[in-house]
Amino acid sequence: MAIIYFDNNATTQVSPGVLEAMMPFFHDLYGNPSSAHSFGGQVAEKVTDAREKVAHLLGARPEEIIFTSGGTESDNAAIRSALADRPEKRHLVTSRVEHPAVRSLFRSLSKEGYRITEIPVNAKGELDMAAYQESLTPDTAVVSLMWANNETGVIFPVEKAAELAHEKGIPFHTDAVQAAGKIPVDLKNGAIDMLSLSGHKLHGPKGIGVLYVRRGTRFRPFIIGGHQEKNRRAGTENTPAIIGLGKACDLAARSIGEENTKVKRLRDRLEQGILSMVPHTRVNGGDVPRLPNTSNISFDFVEGEAILLHLDEYGICASTGSACSSGSLEPSHVLLAMGIPPSSAQGSIRFSLSVYNTEEEVDAVVGRLPGIIEKLRVMSPLYRAGKRGMPSHAA
Amino acid sequence: MAIIYFDNNATTQVSPGVLEAMMPFFHDLYGNPSSAHSFGGQVAEKVTDAREKVAHLLGARPEEIIFTSGGTESDNAAIRSALADRPEKRHLVTSRVEHPAVRSLFRSLSKEGYRITEIPVNAKGELDMAAYQESLTPDTAVVSLMWANNETGVIFPVEKAAELAHEKGIPFHTDAVQAAGKIPVDLKNGAIDMLSLSGHKLHGPKGIGVLYVRRGTRFRPFIIGGHQEKNRRAGTENTPAIIGLGKACDLAARSIGEENTKVKRLRDRLEQGILSMVPHTRVNGGDVPRLPNTSNISFDFVEGEAILLHLDEYGICASTGSACSSGSLEPSHVLLAMGIPPSSAQGSIRFSLSVYNTEEEVDAVVGRLPGIIEKLRVMSPLYRAGKRGMPSHAA
Repeated sequence: MAIIYFDNNATTQVSPGVLEAMMPFFHDLYGNPSSAHSFGGQVAEKVTDAREKVAHLLGARPEEIIFTSGGTESDNAAIRSALADRPEKRHLVTSRVEHPAVRSLFRSLSKEGYRITEIPVNAKGELDMAAYQESLTPDTAVVSLMWANNETGVIFPVEKAAELAHEKGIPFHTDAVQAAGKIPVDLKNGAIDMLSLSGHKLHGPKGIGVLYVRRGTRFRPFIIGGHQEKNRRAGTENTPAIIGLGKACDLAARSIGEENTKVKRLRDRLEQGILSMVPHTRVNGGDVPRLPNTSNISFDFVEGEAILLHLDEYGICASTGSACSSGSLEPSHVLLAMGIPPSSAQGSIRFSLSVYNTEEEVDAVVGRLPGIIEKLRVMSPLYRAGKRGMPSHAA
Repeated sequence: MAIIYFDNNATTQVSPGVLEAMMPFFHDLYGNPSSAHSFGGQVAEKVTDAREKVAHLLGARPEEIIFTSGGTESDNAAIRSALADRPEKRHLVTSRVEHPAVRSLFRSLSKEGYRITEIPVNAKGELDMAAYQESLTPDTAVVSLMWANNETGVIFPVEKAAELAHEKGIPFHTDAVQAAGKIPVDLKNGAIDMLSLSGHKLHGPKGIGVLYVRRGTRFRPFIIGGHQEKNRRAGTENTPAIIGLGKACDLAARSIGEENTKVKRLRDRLEQGILSMVPHTRVNGGDVPRLPNTSNISFDFVEGEAILLHLDEYGICASTGSACSSGSLEPSHVLLAMGIPPSSAQGSIRFSLSVYNTEEEVDAVVGRLPGIIEKLRVMSPLYRAGKRGMPSHAA
């Protein structure tokens, strides 16, 4: 069965060009780039080249790029560094809709005695900027706000938020794992101090990420050991993955226009198709700036997990939220923070597209969904009551 | 020019079988194993299979295996977990000859207020077991001792050391990055609580490692975020690397006999050749149990870096010590701890072999070395003085 992969916010396929770039570094050019011999040295040159490509995508300098094992490590490293640098500060600011990589870390820190402010969002998913401004205090050690939400795609004004933090001398970190490669990111003239990026979200390999640390920002290493990455991240360099990530960033820099034309057109076609074919549906975060590839749709009167199971039978891959929280039966904390009732939140599906998707795939999904939803709804007592004339909150 | 790669303790080539096992998971089976759909689920099954293979190599249970980004992360995670679990304990025990992944972390912890005991070794590289026993106190939070030394190959009696720690209720971690796959490791009935393993040291990929945590040992996660690895290590699973590591462990379990016959024979041939052809040389750690693939040889009156440069011209890859400390001009802390004078320590070369090396390669190195050493020695005033009858400490 052909797979229709609409789960690109969970992970993406490695581009053929990326895989080709990586291949020589497993079995042939396998030297350790930190070795003294030229067999290792030639790999070090390729790492330098990859670092430049990553920097270029972000509008950063190569020396501001630290290679890590992924987005989660980057988030942990950024936040722990800020805390280690100013141990006397005991207050942290984040939002209510962060990815588990930030959210769980902050919750763990709250058990260590840190005071956490989670800034709310409104029904559209927009950050409450007034609450944010008020949250910044002389005791605030660091702010961490995501650039784009992994579940809804809603984009936060992180550049503005970083400026406000800077006015008060507070370091600013952003998890840009979903933003990088999908929307323009340019760190050159901004106030963002630290940024996380993940390889496998932009058609690069898994197991590789980046922590951007602005020149002049003090950094305390998270993983301590050898002198790799200029003493900022110990451990033998993951050279095939670094070189693959360099290529992926290079390709992303070239295709970012396509994200905002081709991918957006596909996403919009999907949404229009679903909304016109299936009653009692709405797009969460659909009214505000969001990623061009992401669509989060609530289907009233049904369970998201049940929809996924039926889609799966047709080889259609989507998700109810973050893969990092799948298995949990809790409704999405992102949708709840937007004020969506738990019953609707539990009937929400995230479709996340990529440049590798096609119009035929979109049409196939739009073709399958009405039957699936109707089949599930006829089993729902609430829906049957609604059909007999009861008003639904979604009407 | 054909490369003669005698630097396998720095990193190894990915075996063809390992690369073959990994390949489908980049571009075809790229699903996120934590996803709800079966496209991701089929990858989760392969991760389970890899976990069983890793566990088998170590004589462990699959649920005791946590996948990490490499040996350094595993070391950091193990030690940080022990400290977080018993924050009131402020004393740490290690050796003077650890890899930077443990040594630098402990030195960083000493700045945070921890008291560190670094157990000495004797001239043969053996751990001072009397000093070790005395070092264990009610205030000791954790012991970390390497299984086999990365520079000399000398094997520590970690199983015995773990028992002694256990008698006092102290958790025991071992960095087995160089031991795993080269000598038998069986954790089933021992007292070792935590063990670090690295993929790229045993013909697996870079960027993947393992932290073994014995069932019943309390563990506090180092990287916090999503629920991967049963909430013990957050971040999207690096599936191609995990599957590659599973295959590498499977192959290592089968070839471990070969390590101790074929590879040992090659290493011994190399040593005998060098010692018989080049005067004023000796094998560091050669008189005690050590890894079958490692040879650390001191060449008096010359600089190791100069030897490496000349070997490099012939495509011969070796090292002066850990790649994780290359670039440093300090003599090896391992050799200094063995009481080797700094001048001799700086003239030492580590040759580390693998099952992929051949007798012809050994003979080529033995053929090249005497000329290189003689050429360097004639430039050395000390050597020329020695030739005129002055006794050298190495005579």
